[in-house]
Amino acid sequence: MNPVSPAIVLIDPQLGENIGMAARAMLNCGLTDLRLVRPRDGWPSQSAERAASGALEKGVMTTLFDTTESAVANCHFVLGTTARPRDMIKDVYTASTAAKTLNQATLDRKKTAILFGAERSGLQNEDIARTNGIITMPLNPDFTSLNLSQAVLLVSYEWMITHQEMPVDPVTVTGKTDSATHHDLSIFTHRLIAELSAHSFFRSDQLRPTIERNLINMVSRMNLTQQDTQTLHGIVSALISRNND
Amino acid sequence: MNPVSPAIVLIDPQLGENIGMAARAMLNCGLTDLRLVRPRDGWPSQSAERAASGALEKGVMTTLFDTTESAVANCHFVLGTTARPRDMIKDVYTASTAAKTLNQATLDRKKTAILFGAERSGLQNEDIARTNGIITMPLNPDFTSLNLSQAVLLVSYEWMITHQEMPVDPVTVTGKTDSATHHDLSIFTHRLIAELSAHSFFRSDQLRPTIERNLINMVSRMNLTQQDTQTLHGIVSALISRNND
Repeated sequence: MNPVSPAIVLIDPQLGENIGMAARAMLNCGLTDLRLVRPRDGWPSQSAERAASGALEKGVMTTLFDTTESAVANCHFVLGTTARPRDMIKDVYTASTAAKTLNQATLDRKKTAILFGAERSGLQNEDIARTNGIITMPLNPDFTSLNLSQAVLLVSYEWMITHQEMPVDPVTVTGKTDSATHHDLSIFTHRLIAELSAHSFFRSDQLRPTIERNLINMVSRMNLTQQDTQTLHGIVSALISRNND
Repeated sequence: MNPVSPAIVLIDPQLGENIGMAARAMLNCGLTDLRLVRPRDGWPSQSAERAASGALEKGVMTTLFDTTESAVANCHFVLGTTARPRDMIKDVYTASTAAKTLNQATLDRKKTAILFGAERSGLQNEDIARTNGIITMPLNPDFTSLNLSQAVLLVSYEWMITHQEMPVDPVTVTGKTDSATHHDLSIFTHRLIAELSAHSFFRSDQLRPTIERNLINMVSRMNLTQQDTQTLHGIVSALISRNND
C-alpha cells in the first residue's frame, strides 16, 4: 500500500457498523488510512469489527482524533464530501475529477484526506472551511441521501479506478517548494486570529465565529506552499511591529 | 425514470438491511426496478424499510419471485456479478464495459438485469448459467469481499455515470461575490508592499524586487474573490493599528 494514499476521515460517525463497512469499502479499493474524529459510540467497536469483515485486521489502520484540525494536520490537500451547496466559496469537484486530483497529489508525494460528516447532519461548516475543495457526487437529484459507508465506497472506488490508469512510479517534482500541510495552516490561522483579536478586528462577539470560519476558509483555499506560510508569518510580524516612520 | 433501465435482481438475499441499503443505493443512481428471489427473512421487511431511508416509498418498486428464471423472464440481456472465475465459458465485463453495454441495450429498448447472489455464497452456477455474461469488479485483489449493497451501489453507479454527462474540470462556486479583478489585486499588493516597507519588512534593497515579485505571485495564485480582497485589506488595517492589549 502506498503510504501517501488518501486518508479517509470520518467526523462524528454515529454507528460502529458504518465505520466497519467504510473500512471494508476502503480496503476493497486499496485504501488503508482511516481516521476517526469523536466516534459517538467509542472505539474500538464490536459492531465495527463485525461489519468490517476482516478489513481492520487485514490492512486498514485506524487512528483516533479529538478534532478535525488534528486529524488533517499532516495533510497537504483536503477535500470534503457534501451534497449540499453551502454559502462558502470553494472549488467543487465531481467524484471523478476529485480522483484525478487526489492521484496527482499522491504522485507528487503529497498527503491527502477526504472528510465525511456524521450520518444525519453531514459535514459542518467549520469542517468544510478547512478543506481545499468539496466533492459532490453526481447522484439522482431526487434522492441524494447516501449512506456514510456507501459514500466512502464511491469516493474510494473512483480513486482506485483512476489510480489503476495512472503511471505506477511516483514522479519527482523539482523546482517547487512543498505544499503547506494543514498543520502549517492551522498554526498560521491561530496566530492570525490571535493577532487580529489583539488588534480589535472582531467588533462583534456574535459574528466572530463566522468571521473566523471565513478566514480559515480563505487560507485553506489558497493552496499555499510552505514558503508562502513563512512569508505570511513574516508579513504579520512586520505589520504588528511598530511603524518606524 | 426510464422503464427499461436495468433491473437489480437479488437472489436469496439474507439480511433485510442489505436489501434496504441496496434499494437506497439504486435510487441514488436512478434505478427503480428491484427484484427479490426468495428473500430469506420474508417480504416486506421492517429492517429493509429502515435501511432504505425512504427509497422504497420514493421510487424503488420491489417485486418478489420464486425463481431466478421467472425474475429475468422479461429481460433481453442479463449480467451476473461474481468475484470468482467459474468453470464456465462467459463473456467477462468490467464494471465500466458492463455499464456501456447496459446503456446501449437500454437505448435499443432492451430490458436488462443484473444478478447478485446471497451474501455468503454469491451467485450459484445455475444462476450464472442464465446470464449473457459476468461482471467482475476491479477491486483490490487482496481483499475482494464486497458487501451485497456495496456491490449493488458500484454497478448502479457505473451505470449512472455512463448515462450522464459530467463536467471535466472543477468549477469554482462563488457564492455571493465575484472573483477579484487583477486591478483589485494590484491595489491590495501596492498597499501591502507600502505598509511592509514602512514596517522594515525589506531588509535588503538588493533582494527587495524579488521579494515583491514573490508577494505579488502569491496573491495572484490565490484565486481571491472581491470579498477576499476586502477581508485582506481589513486584516492589514487591523494589524497596523496600535495593539490595545
